[in-house]
Amino acid sequence: MSDKPTVFKGYAVMDPEKWDQFEVIEYQPKTWEETDVELRITHCGVCGSDVHTINPAGWGGTKYPLVPGHEIAGVAIRVGSQVTGIKVGDRVGVGAQIWSCMDCRACKSNQENYCPKKTDTYGHFYPDGVYTMGGYSTAIRAKSQFVFPIPDGLESKHAASMLCGGLTVYSPLVRNGCGPGKKVGIVGVGGLGHYALLFAKALGAEVYAFTRSDKKADDIKKLGADHIVITSEEGWNKPLHMSLDLIISTADTSSGFPIKDYLSMLWVNGSFIAVGLPDDDLPAVNAFTLLDNGSKLGGSHIGSKEEAIAMLELAAEKGIKPWIEELPMKDASKAIQGIKNGKARYRYVLTQDLE
Amino acid sequence: MSDKPTVFKGYAVMDPEKWDQFEVIEYQPKTWEETDVELRITHCGVCGSDVHTINPAGWGGTKYPLVPGHEIAGVAIRVGSQVTGIKVGDRVGVGAQIWSCMDCRACKSNQENYCPKKTDTYGHFYPDGVYTMGGYSTAIRAKSQFVFPIPDGLESKHAASMLCGGLTVYSPLVRNGCGPGKKVGIVGVGGLGHYALLFAKALGAEVYAFTRSDKKADDIKKLGADHIVITSEEGWNKPLHMSLDLIISTADTSSGFPIKDYLSMLWVNGSFIAVGLPDDDLPAVNAFTLLDNGSKLGGSHIGSKEEAIAMLELAAEKGIKPWIEELPMKDASKAIQGIKNGKARYRYVLTQDLE
Repeated sequence: MSDKPTVFKGYAVMDPEKWDQFEVIEYQPKTWEETDVELRITHCGVCGSDVHTINPAGWGGTKYPLVPGHEIAGVAIRVGSQVTGIKVGDRVGVGAQIWSCMDCRACKSNQENYCPKKTDTYGHFYPDGVYTMGGYSTAIRAKSQFVFPIPDGLESKHAASMLCGGLTVYSPLVRNGCGPGKKVGIVGVGGLGHYALLFAKALGAEVYAFTRSDKKADDIKKLGADHIVITSEEGWNKPLHMSLDLIISTADTSSGFPIKDYLSMLWVNGSFIAVGLPDDDLPAVNAFTLLDNGSKLGGSHIGSKEEAIAMLELAAEKGIKPWIEELPMKDASKAIQGIKNGKARYRYVLTQDLE
Repeated sequence: MSDKPTVFKGYAVMDPEKWDQFEVIEYQPKTWEETDVELRITHCGVCGSDVHTINPAGWGGTKYPLVPGHEIAGVAIRVGSQVTGIKVGDRVGVGAQIWSCMDCRACKSNQENYCPKKTDTYGHFYPDGVYTMGGYSTAIRAKSQFVFPIPDGLESKHAASMLCGGLTVYSPLVRNGCGPGKKVGIVGVGGLGHYALLFAKALGAEVYAFTRSDKKADDIKKLGADHIVITSEEGWNKPLHMSLDLIISTADTSSGFPIKDYLSMLWVNGSFIAVGLPDDDLPAVNAFTLLDNGSKLGGSHIGSKEEAIAMLELAAEKGIKPWIEELPMKDASKAIQGIKNGKARYRYVLTQDLE
């Protein structure tokens, strides 16, 4: 296999002090295994997680240099002998998870996204100590469990950012019963929120978009929401008291977030799922708030391979196209600053420009 | 109907300063309606809510004098012409809810325990302004929706405290899938917790009891728990990481409660349901804690009539007997102090001694 690349190149953050600047570095991928697939990367989406991870004021614990990126689309260039269903030349993608043990209860029940040993696509360590590097790069090597075929009807540039941004909202939507006859609230209309609107609608629900101002109202209508609720208006939540079956929050739900008002809109035993990951704790909830409707506050971690495949097929079937802005990979810094400053409408996708 | 009582007598708290002392008062019941049933009370359980309500340092908002008590068993002495399924002489009970609108979505879908206009059995107001008085009394008048037949196989003294203490844990157990093959954690072994152990076991689950010391270990075994976890021991939660399908917490879950440790024990998308109602907020949860297993933190409000009937039938069928201490109603003060000081093993039931 000497004709295959064993050195990858990628755009790395070198230094936490210069966390929004990138330099091209070379690095070794993980040791090849026959359950692996190697991708030549054509596209990589830019995720809010990238900012939270590379910015030292964010989630913390990052080791530099780091190549971020976990919304990867490309072409399979090497396929392990134990891999089924993927062949060299296939368009495939990789999302925010790159490894799991495949041996625990979660892995054995198609819940590998909840494996206690789950490993992030970048900024984490494989069990053998190799530091994971993401998709702002020429290539990536991954266990085939975390490599998803991209259906013919879906362009790679559209599939890329679905693999974290899309899946992160698709999974809690389907796990919490989003579908015809259900009323679903989506909080925040950014990268994740725009996907939540697209998928909730594609799944057949009646969709309520919650946004702080009317600034994005036109976009929200075009994204398919049935109703827009402006949360800076007095009493905004009152007309929807106990009427929503599910709320997916993509907003920063830390201190000051009106969690009580949101919970009050849930129908009996409905769930509020927070997928926006603030740097701080979620706001404290009073037990009486949860008691009034038996509501629940929950979290979610991306999605399983089964869900990723179902989501990509739904997108192909329904012609779902995320709203993306394409930039060459060398402009990663621009995209990162755009995310940080809330400028994305609604997802940046970097296109390959190395080699 | 001149032979029916229109004045009831009950043991009332007269003054917030003397919140654990009772005097016999006379009061008018709500206006009779043909959908009502009137009970001669034989037994009334004493609930932690009674302490939280009558003690001015508790939940607050109480108007005095107040006759507490919402775990009521008795005999039907007057049955409205529009009531079906109950006749004079039947043993029947009333729990913590005395009224709902019967017209909203919740009421029309057998979720009357989540009616936005739900009215508590004591210390609340009917829509016509009448203040509700509870079961430390000779009689109670209630809409038949909130009057439950007591099956032949179940003694009234055992049924009484099931109608709040039992139902409050039974409802979230069944709504969250408690049954054979499921691992269910019960936090706190007091009045509610002892019911949760009895019902979780009766429903067929493998039951884990969480308690701060081994003081109640013998009781816990007798109540049927399969496993006892002493939460003052280092690393107590570690062996159960991601293994419980459901946790029902009857403990005071306010500040300092190790919510993160409990959530970490839940299997994928499992729920932690807090039915203990602290005076303060629940502890704040970090979004990453919920993300690791997609867990949920939720609440619950007693149960529906359907659930109450199913619970009483299960208790009759399986011979479930709560652990109760009977006291004459005049000793309400002793029972209240026992609850306040954590002395109940595990529920006080007051027996009628008026008239």
